[in-house]
Order: sequence, then C-alpha cells, then structure tokens
Amino acid sequence: MAQEKKLVEEITSMEADFAQWYTDVVKKAELIEYSSVKGCMIIRPYGYALWENIQRQLDADFKDTGVENVYMPLFIPESLLQKEKDHVEGFAPEVAWVTHGGDEKLQDRLCVRPTSETLFCDFYSNIIQSYRDLPKLYNQWCSVVRWEKTTRPFLRSTEFLWQEGHTAHATEEEANERTIQMLNVYADFCENVLAIPMIKGKKSDKEKFAGAEATYTIEAMMHDGKALQSGTSHDFGDGFAKAFDIQYTDKNNQLQYVHQTSWGMSTRIIGAIIMVHGDNSGLVLPPRIAPIQAMIIPIAQNKEGVLDKAYEIKNKLKDFKVRVDDSEKTPGWKFSEQEMRGIPIRIEIGPKDIEKNQAVVVRRDTREKIFVSLDEIEIKVEEILENMQFDMLSRAKAHRDSHTYSAKNMEEFEQIINNKPGFIKAMWCMDQDCEKEIKDRTGATSRCMPFEQEHIDDNCVCCNKPAKTMAYWGKAY
Amino acid sequence: MAQEKKLVEEITSMEADFAQWYTDVVKKAELIEYSSVKGCMIIRPYGYALWENIQRQLDADFKDTGVENVYMPLFIPESLLQKEKDHVEGFAPEVAWVTHGGDEKLQDRLCVRPTSETLFCDFYSNIIQSYRDLPKLYNQWCSVVRWEKTTRPFLRSTEFLWQEGHTAHATEEEANERTIQMLNVYADFCENVLAIPMIKGKKSDKEKFAGAEATYTIEAMMHDGKALQSGTSHDFGDGFAKAFDIQYTDKNNQLQYVHQTSWGMSTRIIGAIIMVHGDNSGLVLPPRIAPIQAMIIPIAQNKEGVLDKAYEIKNKLKDFKVRVDDSEKTPGWKFSEQEMRGIPIRIEIGPKDIEKNQAVVVRRDTREKIFVSLDEIEIKVEEILENMQFDMLSRAKAHRDSHTYSAKNMEEFEQIINNKPGFIKAMWCMDQDCEKEIKDRTGATSRCMPFEQEHIDDNCVCCNKPAKTMAYWGKAY
Repeated sequence: MAQEKKLVEEITSMEADFAQWYTDVVKKAELIEYSSVKGCMIIRPYGYALWENIQRQLDADFKDTGVENVYMPLFIPESLLQKEKDHVEGFAPEVAWVTHGGDEKLQDRLCVRPTSETLFCDFYSNIIQSYRDLPKLYNQWCSVVRWEKTTRPFLRSTEFLWQEGHTAHATEEEANERTIQMLNVYADFCENVLAIPMIKGKKSDKEKFAGAEATYTIEAMMHDGKALQSGTSHDFGDGFAKAFDIQYTDKNNQLQYVHQTSWGMSTRIIGAIIMVHGDNSGLVLPPRIAPIQAMIIPIAQNKEGVLDKAYEIKNKLKDFKVRVDDSEKTPGWKFSEQEMRGIPIRIEIGPKDIEKNQAVVVRRDTREKIFVSLDEIEIKVEEILENMQFDMLSRAKAHRDSHTYSAKNMEEFEQIINNKPGFIKAMWCMDQDCEKEIKDRTGATSRCMPFEQEHIDDNCVCCNKPAKTMAYWGKAY
Repeated sequence: MAQEKKLVEEITSMEADFAQWYTDVVKKAELIEYSSVKGCMIIRPYGYALWENIQRQLDADFKDTGVENVYMPLFIPESLLQKEKDHVEGFAPEVAWVTHGGDEKLQDRLCVRPTSETLFCDFYSNIIQSYRDLPKLYNQWCSVVRWEKTTRPFLRSTEFLWQEGHTAHATEEEANERTIQMLNVYADFCENVLAIPMIKGKKSDKEKFAGAEATYTIEAMMHDGKALQSGTSHDFGDGFAKAFDIQYTDKNNQLQYVHQTSWGMSTRIIGAIIMVHGDNSGLVLPPRIAPIQAMIIPIAQNKEGVLDKAYEIKNKLKDFKVRVDDSEKTPGWKFSEQEMRGIPIRIEIGPKDIEKNQAVVVRRDTREKIFVSLDEIEIKVEEILENMQFDMLSRAKAHRDSHTYSAKNMEEFEQIINNKPGFIKAMWCMDQDCEKEIKDRTGATSRCMPFEQEHIDDNCVCCNKPAKTMAYWGKAY
C-alpha cells in the first residue's frame, strides 16, 4: 500500500501546476525518459507505440489520397539551404551544423535538416520535366532538428519525429486544393481518432511558414485553455520553384513553373492528447489510438479459476488490444497503473463475478462501473469503447466552447485574457502593427483566421479601423 | 519504338560490367536518385516501398519475440561515445561532428549516431535497477551516419536506414541465446521472404564489431560471386555494462552487471535483393517482398471490352498487389518497364484472349508464358507466385553451391580466387597473422566461421599449423 500511494502522490494536480502535472504524466506513464543529450528525449515503448498507431493511421490516410513515401538525406549543404531567401532567414538561426566528417573539415558545412523543402526542391528540379511527371505527391517520416533554447517533452524538443509531405503541381489551383485537402486529413484524423476538435484556419503573415505564400493550421485548446498548433499545411505558390528552377513543359510545349505545397504533423500531437484528455490520475487515451484498449485485472487471482477466466475473457476479446495484468502486485496498485497509463477500460474479474457470470468494466474517463454479463462481453466492450471515444470528443468540444470568448475592444480583450484561460474571437484589420500590439499588451498571439468566420463587430479590436477578418487569439504552447 | 529500345539499351550487361549493371538498375528501376549531399542517396517511392515491406515483416518477427520499439536521440555527446574504449576507436574516425547549434559553439561536440550502443547503455543505466526490470528488449528504426570515402547506393552510403536492436539480460546465457535467436530471425526472413540463402556463422576477432565479445553474421553470395554481409548480431557480454555501470540487484539482493546484445539489418539488404536475383532486363523481385506482384497489361486496349476485362481481373485478384497499366504507352514499352522494375508476373489480356476466356501470365524470372483460364485465375496466380518464390530460392542456392570451392593450401586458394568468382572453404588456425596474409595475397577476407562446420583438412590453409576451424573466405562488398 505504501507503493500504491506513492504512484498517485507523485503526480502534481493539474489545478496546482499544469506544467508540472504534464511533466509528471509523461514521466510516470513512461512515455519518455530524458537523455544525456540536451533537449533530446528518449521515446519509451509506450510512447512509441502511440506514435506507431498515429503513423499507421495517418499514413493510410495519406496513401488514400495518392501520396507515396520516400526518404531524403538527413543533411542539407549550406549552399542549398540559402537558395530561398525567406526560408534560410527563418531556419538558419536554429539549425545544428556539421563541420567535420571524421577528422576532415568540410568545405561546405552541412546542417541537420530542420525541414526538407530545399532537398525536395533540388530533387524535383532533377525529376520533373514534363506535365506528365505531375503531380508529385511525396511524403517522408523522419526526425528533424531545431536548436531550441527551452525544451519540453513532445511540445518542443531539439529533435522531434514527424512526417513532412511535399507536393508539386501543374497549377496554382491544384496546389491550393492539395493544401486544404491535407489540412482536412489532419483535422479529420484528430477529431475521429484522437477525439480532439480542431479549429481550421489560415495563419497571419507574421505566423506563416518561412517561404510560404499561405500557411493553414489546425488549432486545439488544451485543458488549461492554451492553444496548441497541431498541424500545418503550406501553399508555396511558385516561390520555391523559381528559386530552385523547377520547370516543366506543358501540353503546348511551354515552360512553366510548378506550384508546391508542404504539410506536417509531429510527435507534438502526443502532447495534445495528454493535455486535452488527461486528468489528475494520469493519461486518458482515446480508444482508437490507445496501444492497450483494455486491461483485465484479476481480483484474488490466486483463487482457483480466476486467472483462467481472465484469459478466457482475453480470448473472447481478440478483436481488441487487451492484456491481462497477472503480475504479483495488488489489484489497487494495478488499478493505479492502468489509470496512469490511460488505458481506456479495465475489466475486473474475481470469484464473486465468476459466480454471477459477469465482469466489472470501468471506464477510465468517467470511472463509471458497468456490470457486464460474460455472455455478451464482446459486444458490450465494443459499445463502451465507442461511447467513450464519442464522449471524449464531446467533452473536449464542450470544454473548448465554454472557454471561447468574444471581445470587441482591447478593454474586453484584456479583461478576458487576464481572468479567463481560453480563446478570444476578435475582429482584426490584418495589420501586423495591431497583431504586435495585442501580443505585447496581452501575451496572446493570433492563432488563425478561421474558415468559419463570425461577425463580432465592424472594426478591428485593436485600432478600431474597419476589420477585414475575424481571428482567434490566445496564449499558445 | 525508339523509346522502347532506349529503356533496354541503357542497361549495361552484368557480364560486361557488373558494377555498372548494378548502378544502371538502381537508377532505371527508380529505386534511388543521387542527391546534392555527398554520399547520401534519395530513396524513391519504389525503393522505399520495398523498404516498407521489409520493415513491416521484420518488425512483426521482432515483436513476436517480445521486442518493443523505442526512439533514441540522433546525437551522441563526444564524452558519452568515449566511455567504451574499443567502441570509440572503431567509430570515431568515421563520424560526422556537430560543432555549432545556430550561432553558438558547443562545449561538448555531438556526433551524429553511427550506431546507438552508447545511448542505449546510458538509458539502461537509468532504468534498470532490479532483476524484475530484465530483460529489456528494445529496437529502433532510424537512420545512421558513417563518413564513407567511396559510396554506392544501398551498399555503402554516408547515411543509411536500418534497425538496431539492443537488449539487456540478467545472465550471459540469456544474452547469448538472444544473439543467436535474432541471427536466426534474419536468416529465416532472408530465405523465406527474400529468397536469399544465408550462411550463418561467427566473425573472426578482426572482423567483429567494435566493443563486442562475439559477432555473428549472415553472409550471402551475389551473382558476381562476391559476399555481402547481410545482417549481424553481437554478444557484448558485460563489457558495455561495466563501462556504463549498468547493474541490477538479483534475487539474493546482490549487485550484478547486465549482459547485452545488439543486432542490425539495413537498407543494404536491398542491394542483396538486386544482386542475387537481377538479370540483364533489370530487377527481379521475390513475390513475397514485391511492392507490386502483378502488372496487368491490356493488349489493344482501345478495343471495346479490353480495359473492362483488365479491371475485372484486377478485382478478382484483390488478395494480391496488382495494378493495371492503362497508360498510353505501347504494350512492348510496358513489358520493358514491368521487367525493369522486377514485377514478378505480368498478365497480358487482349481481344483474342477474351474470346478464349483466358489470359497470358508471364513469369519475370523464367519468362515462361502460362495460359490461364479466367475462371481459375486467382488460384493460378497464387500458384505461379508461390512457384516463383520457391524457384528463386532454389536458383540462388544452386548458384551459391556451384560457386563454392575448397582449398587445402595457398596454391589452391590463389588458383581459385584468381580464376573463379565465389566462396572458398578453407581450414584456419585462427591466428590473425594468417588472416592478414590471406587478405594481402588474395584480397579475400574471412567471411565467417560457419555454424555448419566441415572438415576440409587438418591444417591451416595458410601456415599449415593445426587448424581450429573451417572458415568461408571471399571477396566482399
């Protein structure tokens, strides 16, 4: 029992210190371990199993739209990185430089890729000649490095895992369609699989990707009311094509520049899963992404027939990811572990349950206890997991909506930002000076100009001149 | 027709220049493209699809033995790399060094991982305390970097993709068992899936991994008679554990060092698939690893009903990876492409075939034409693919066996090595001086001391002193 207490006691409550709660959960649920390499984390088996599930499902979604996977080099020669002016300005300050190979000093320094636009452009300039070669719809799963001063597991680390899609198209329209298509793939995946509702919209010019004509984003609200940019999709127009000379001959034998996109989602999304769904007992994982969906915990497992029955139930549930915890720990200790790891349901089975031909199913999110006849356990487990998946999305939506406010002027804006964590909807003239002033005065950044616009007022919340858009504002990770 | 000729003409024949044939195939089959980064290749969709198939099957094999996946940092601090003496001596001369993060010069240089023993050891020293924490059976899929002077696609490149398994065990026996177990996983995968027969054995001390007590290897013979080391499994004993202080308390509460293993297979194996099975028309892929198993090629596809029938066949073959080539190219051009890409079978369907309710199935390896009734095409395709898989392994075995010789003295050895490409079986005293002399005189290295020993003679082929082992010798990639 001493041990049991310890497991729970060591988590800081989210109300007391949300940042510390987060750090406690990632460590105690054994998602990550810190490494000897500053700013780099070790992703442990349970964390990596989550990432593998994300990969498997997203990768299938990509392939359904015609995307093919490739692998590009880890290194980018300095001369290549410098070809697109905005891009190099955005990334050069935060890259790791390789200067020596073995004992030999390199002529042209190599940076460890922070993102691979320049490599894909170089590649495309070699393999695209004719309109018949288009579109190119390539993606890679890899790690990238950005030299970060302050790091946090999953949210901001020197090295992180991600996918980066890079496409080349004959026309501007097709590139724009692809940009939006992939944003929708991300948003649908987050809603349907991760139970995280997303706001889809366009980034301001200040917040857009270095080198992009337009950046689109999906933004989620964490439990503490802060925003997490969860995936982005960039429309490059023909800017990179001109810098890298990527041309094709069209059907009329005329040379044309291609139009490009890129889009990425990273291990950062694991941070969102934790901060949207977690509670003071640890992780809460949506059933559709959980590496283990049900943990069967035998009660009085030394009594005859209990373990056999536990494994009998496991065999009945072969369509689900189920384990039996038959370790020597106490049931209470096992409950705490199952809760800490966010396993969607636990199935308790003891001598009394066996007598009644039942098991007790406990939902991780609501802690609801459901008595289920062993004759219908497959169908009931399926139903409970489906309900849980649905309820988690509903709760996340309700939380977001109840923490979203409107402001018509800076007094209202400041009043809200200083007292109520969450998002603020406010009109904007789209002038960068106003964006900067809002950030300086409140700490809130423009999250996006959502596709679903609302009319809050006629004028900009900051300068009171005529507004051009409604934007979401908030403090962000 | 001009185009058709070009596709075939551009491949050098393997008899004229095997190295050039290899380069032609990897380029023309669109497996890779060279990049602007010296020694780094771009793996194109068809090449990456091959790697994905390898990954999927090997990963399942690993997990069946209890292995879990993790992800470790890309970088190793210089101080960490230096902890195990033999290991740093083996790898330091060929690593890429990161000296700057952004504008800031690093205190402790970081090398880009050439392999991750040191990181896993550092990790294990933090998470292993008790015998209850053992074994740890971790693996990661990632890229590694080794600064190579001369590089060749898949066979030797500055960066390559691989998996590296790292395990920690309570006892020496358990570690040794795991080392052999994983070698067998590799060998079985190569034989059963890649149709490549392997010789399993132990590396000489000279050829073993830097820091290992023993290295085991699987060695394959390429079409030109050279050896390709295709996968290795290392038994570390407690050497790394002592250098990194990885100790656990056993059941008697005594501190003990763990015993470790590591094992890896890389994209190099794709080079083996090419060089074992390929021919002068291009790749020949074993059905069980091919990204596309059958290409349906309509003949006179503009005639009514032909394309419909082609798609009808595709639908019937939904258990296989099948495509229809309905592009505007000529059938002859499509045949050449299917052959170049090594797609195991093509299915020709034209108006005359439709009249006879048949299709013509052509095997890529033997070019055998098989007339198949459309009523039994599913079962026939399955049978043909299975036969082809089996025949490819048999042919590779026969080729290896007919190019394997025995030598009792250096005269015989030199006579063979200078005239007949292949492997030489010869006795050895296990003295490194003899190993060196053989290499200096003949260019052949000791490939392995095979598990299946034969008695060729009593004495060492080189010094004529009593022999301790039979070894395979050969020129190698």
